[in-house]
Amino acid sequence: MAEDKHIEITEKCLDESIDAFFKSAPPLQDLDNITKKLENFVAQHSVHSESQNTKKVVCVTSGGTTVPLERRCVRYIDNFSSGHRGASSTEYFLKAGYMVIFLHRRGTAQPFCRFLPENPILECFEPSDDSGIQVCSPYAEAVKSAIQEHKSAVNSGYFLQLDFTTLFEYLQILQVITLAINRLGAYGMFYLAAAVSDFYVPWDSMTEHKIQSGPGGLAMQLAPVPKMLTLLRKRWAPVAFCVSFKLETDIDILLKKAESARRKYGVHAVVANELSTRKEKVIVVTDQSQTVIEKKGVGMDVEEPLIDFLIKEHAAYTFHQSHFVAKTSEL
Amino acid sequence: MAEDKHIEITEKCLDESIDAFFKSAPPLQDLDNITKKLENFVAQHSVHSESQNTKKVVCVTSGGTTVPLERRCVRYIDNFSSGHRGASSTEYFLKAGYMVIFLHRRGTAQPFCRFLPENPILECFEPSDDSGIQVCSPYAEAVKSAIQEHKSAVNSGYFLQLDFTTLFEYLQILQVITLAINRLGAYGMFYLAAAVSDFYVPWDSMTEHKIQSGPGGLAMQLAPVPKMLTLLRKRWAPVAFCVSFKLETDIDILLKKAESARRKYGVHAVVANELSTRKEKVIVVTDQSQTVIEKKGVGMDVEEPLIDFLIKEHAAYTFHQSHFVAKTSEL
Repeated sequence: MAEDKHIEITEKCLDESIDAFFKSAPPLQDLDNITKKLENFVAQHSVHSESQNTKKVVCVTSGGTTVPLERRCVRYIDNFSSGHRGASSTEYFLKAGYMVIFLHRRGTAQPFCRFLPENPILECFEPSDDSGIQVCSPYAEAVKSAIQEHKSAVNSGYFLQLDFTTLFEYLQILQVITLAINRLGAYGMFYLAAAVSDFYVPWDSMTEHKIQSGPGGLAMQLAPVPKMLTLLRKRWAPVAFCVSFKLETDIDILLKKAESARRKYGVHAVVANELSTRKEKVIVVTDQSQTVIEKKGVGMDVEEPLIDFLIKEHAAYTFHQSHFVAKTSEL
Repeated sequence: MAEDKHIEITEKCLDESIDAFFKSAPPLQDLDNITKKLENFVAQHSVHSESQNTKKVVCVTSGGTTVPLERRCVRYIDNFSSGHRGASSTEYFLKAGYMVIFLHRRGTAQPFCRFLPENPILECFEPSDDSGIQVCSPYAEAVKSAIQEHKSAVNSGYFLQLDFTTLFEYLQILQVITLAINRLGAYGMFYLAAAVSDFYVPWDSMTEHKIQSGPGGLAMQLAPVPKMLTLLRKRWAPVAFCVSFKLETDIDILLKKAESARRKYGVHAVVANELSTRKEKVIVVTDQSQTVIEKKGVGMDVEEPLIDFLIKEHAAYTFHQSHFVAKTSEL
């Protein structure tokens, strides 16, 4: 009883801090457009929902969020993330037949383009003899397949791209997505690979103009970002299958933090990765097990076995939800 | 006499803080390679130095620097800059016959590519009927000229591209460039358009691992970045023509700060720009005048008249240096 009360109070505090966050955030410019895109996208799922192979929908988040330090933003804190994890995972989800909402940081890695150099337009092309342009020979295949596969994914209608830069944009768009995915019940999935800021400067307390430099340096006070994951799991999309990520540079605290995050937020799996080995190996922490997943060889992606593993977990979860939960509710 | 002593002490303090900065900075990975590239590049200048039209060399810096908050960097503070100013200015310097060292933030705007969309490889190309790829028609001319003009600049040998991400990289590479440009006397120029951090976390006091989040938020103490511009002007390349930039969001303090920077660092010109109007208008502050420079029309660049103005100032300066200074030293 006393514990229940404690949980209630904690949730109330969280609600208040999240309310304050959203109220103080600069409003999203194209919210209506994003909502419409999401409605159309999710509507396609219902076309398939009567058939035997019901389409599943995953929201993959990718890249880091920025936290502005000034309202007319000159300086900001950024979280390092190339977006390669999210981009390659999106490819494997699409190959497995999932519909993918790819919520990514503007300018980060795109699916099917991972094998191109950093600046493909200047590095992969050259002037041709007939005063046109041509692809430089070592990149011929990579450029062709990047453009063809990306376009084919977009044209299929099963791949929706949405982008963000700031933490404010990210969390507002994510909330709209959760509401859309919630309609799909257990067929919906979240794969939250974006590197989200833990600290921010509340819009209310942010300086209007560029911070002036003084001889003594700069003292900054950042507020903790309210933990939206709790709300996502408990209210926004409580039945969707939810995978979160934990990145640490210190291997000693990684697994402890991953397990603690799994319990705290009630997510179905936490992908634990260590900064220096994250491209070779991850550990998936569920309530049943800790599974080490490694890439199969040189030139292979760790995301291939990772997505394979998670899709099986999601299938088991969907089966469980539709059979056992349905039966329980019949009783 | 007392004032001289004050200046001496101030310079000593600056020297010490700059020494401390460079000593504590992580060493540049490819310093030898960069030094060699610069030597070869500047050596070309001497080929022309006997002829009537002596080539001038400008170092254009572009984009913002990052300041890591952790050694194994997950979070960093970034300075907003698309790099468009530096990229377009580089084009006009090249057109005017300058040799350009383009020191830019990795991933920011490239000369000749300014009219392409953000993600040109996916937005400008499409699969063709013969299962190859082709340029989407609205971009046909922009893509062709971007690739041709960029390649032609690189092949001319008058365009050297060097890149940075962190403040530590930027300042170390800039120092090496100043030493190379210093050999050219008044024919050298600096056009410092990069958005350089005013504050940083000294490497020594930086945490090794990812900063852990706590319920109470995060207090950060940043140190002021030592003002390298003083050293650049007084020691590293004292005869080179030097243009610095001042960006503010508050128009009321902009001109005051620009004039104060001109005096403090002894630069030949300060380009003052206000964040919201910087693409239409700048004010060039010299010891003679404050000149408002505006773009000539829709679809035109403010950098065109700006570079034109600065090239004339540089020509007058070179003329003055070679005639009057030479004569004075003969006396």
